[in-house]
Amino acid sequence: MISLSLIGIGTGNPDHLTMQARRAMNGADLILLPRKGEAKADLLDLRRGICVQVLERPVRVVEFDLPVRSANGDYLGAVNDWHDAIARTWSREIARNLPQGGHLALLVWGDPSLYDSTLRIAARLQDDGMDLGIEVVPGITSVQALTAAHAIALNRLAEPFVVTTGRQLRDRGWPQGTNVVVVMLDGGCAFETLEPEGIEIWWGAYLGMEHEALIHGPLPEVANRIVEARKALRERHGWIMDTYLMHRTFNDQTGAGG
Amino acid sequence: MISLSLIGIGTGNPDHLTMQARRAMNGADLILLPRKGEAKADLLDLRRGICVQVLERPVRVVEFDLPVRSANGDYLGAVNDWHDAIARTWSREIARNLPQGGHLALLVWGDPSLYDSTLRIAARLQDDGMDLGIEVVPGITSVQALTAAHAIALNRLAEPFVVTTGRQLRDRGWPQGTNVVVVMLDGGCAFETLEPEGIEIWWGAYLGMEHEALIHGPLPEVANRIVEARKALRERHGWIMDTYLMHRTFNDQTGAGG
Ligand SMILES: C[S@@+](CC[C@H](N)C(=O)[O-])C[C@H]1O[C@@H](n2cnc3c(N)ncnc32)[C@H](O)[C@@H]1O
Ligand SMILES: C[S@@+](CC[C@H](N)C(=O)[O-])C[C@H]1O[C@@H](n2cnc3c(N)ncnc32)[C@H](O)[C@@H]1O
Repeated sequence: MISLSLIGIGTGNPDHLTMQARRAMNGADLILLPRKGEAKADLLDLRRGICVQVLERPVRVVEFDLPVRSANGDYLGAVNDWHDAIARTWSREIARNLPQGGHLALLVWGDPSLYDSTLRIAARLQDDGMDLGIEVVPGITSVQALTAAHAIALNRLAEPFVVTTGRQLRDRGWPQGTNVVVVMLDGGCAFETLEPEGIEIWWGAYLGMEHEALIHGPLPEVANRIVEARKALRERHGWIMDTYLMHRTFNDQTGAGG
Repeated sequence: MISLSLIGIGTGNPDHLTMQARRAMNGADLILLPRKGEAKADLLDLRRGICVQVLERPVRVVEFDLPVRSANGDYLGAVNDWHDAIARTWSREIARNLPQGGHLALLVWGDPSLYDSTLRIAARLQDDGMDLGIEVVPGITSVQALTAAHAIALNRLAEPFVVTTGRQLRDRGWPQGTNVVVVMLDGGCAFETLEPEGIEIWWGAYLGMEHEALIHGPLPEVANRIVEARKALRERHGWIMDTYLMHRTFNDQTGAGG
């Protein structure tokens, strides 16, 4: 029997860790840390640093190489194959490091519920017959790191909001029925595909981290600044993670607000 | 000069507190705790308990009576009047307790960005000319407490999701363009207004708290159980806070998924 804790660790600021996360880390027999290659070595260092800072007893910490996602074929197919490969890797590491069973912990970026595949991969192990109990420890998401850094609310008073991906925004345009959109997982700058008039944007990269960068303003005025900052920062650091919130001037047709 | 920290404390589990929240509480000169009347005395006790548990130095903790929202007139008008009244109360407490300025902290339920009025009320003080710097410390939201308790993801792979209120769901039906909806601030059971076929629901009340209650299943099967549990729990405890996530079976017309 394996009991698996998926522990949300926030988005880079070790002070995002909750007491619950600290307890869960210290209660584990084994913590597995994924190695994601040279470019993202910072992120591995960060997780290593959290382990050093938080662990008060000798919990085993083992690193493993995360399989790489294929860039071929359709997006969802490639993601599914990748999740299968990760599930096989976890199985191997569990068999090797916890042959008698025990308590495994994984440190999940942000919160395990938000655009993260860890729960889906764990479900594959269960489907394959592994006797696996899952506990989730919530963590601060990049969305909350964004709104905290800008000191803004996510929603307008009594209104709904949408959380979506860069790909969806690009393919489908501004979501129907809402004046507030949060965009994550944007490999480019999908906001460039929108008619910018009447849109205000709050953008943030490396939220909670040393290099945190913030830009806010009317989209027609700041879009280019974001595009350029994003490019320069990505070159400087070798990788970038960014998230943004957009408000659209009240649009009667949506029926939102009141 | 007043520096105001709005500190997200999570949704009732003191272990939701982050290290950043603990630091901010200990860095304050004054913490103001709102009294919301008899029915919600539990919630005041919880905040008092957090102060006792977290404070490592003699920070002043002052309680004040939160104005009551009028049940008259239109909803948004009543909310705006209420926020004005709260802003006046804060001003009075600040003048009384921090006449020379200093560092004020407020403990915000969940995260300050999510369906919370604290930032809006602070903006009123700035508009009235108070020299007020605002810092936001993110906290675990009830949405994350819900997904963690059920060990589920918020989104489906690469799909968007909508967060909305009970009132909006009742008035506008299932939001367009998405198969995943989170509902908060539902004074009744707004899911009853939906055609239940093909909808799966994950419901949670008192998330993170001693009386946490969870129900999950196909909406046609569990809707009545939720309605009855909600009624019984509300009677037993004098108040209830609940949140739910619904997935709809893939609907081609939305264009979501793929
Ligand atoms: C695979 S998702 C994981 C999200 C994570 N589970 C969370 O709760 O934030 C990765 C996306 O999250 C956002 N993100 C994560 N960390 C971030 C950070 N430190 N700054 C800005 N955006 C971040 C970016 O949109 C990125 O593309
Ligand atoms: C005024 S909003 C505040 C939300 C809060 N800022 C957050 O981050 O969760 C109150 C609503 O949050 C949800 N909520 C807050 N605490 C909850 C809890 N412990 N269990 C279930 N729902 C909760 C309910 O939907 C409730 O109507």
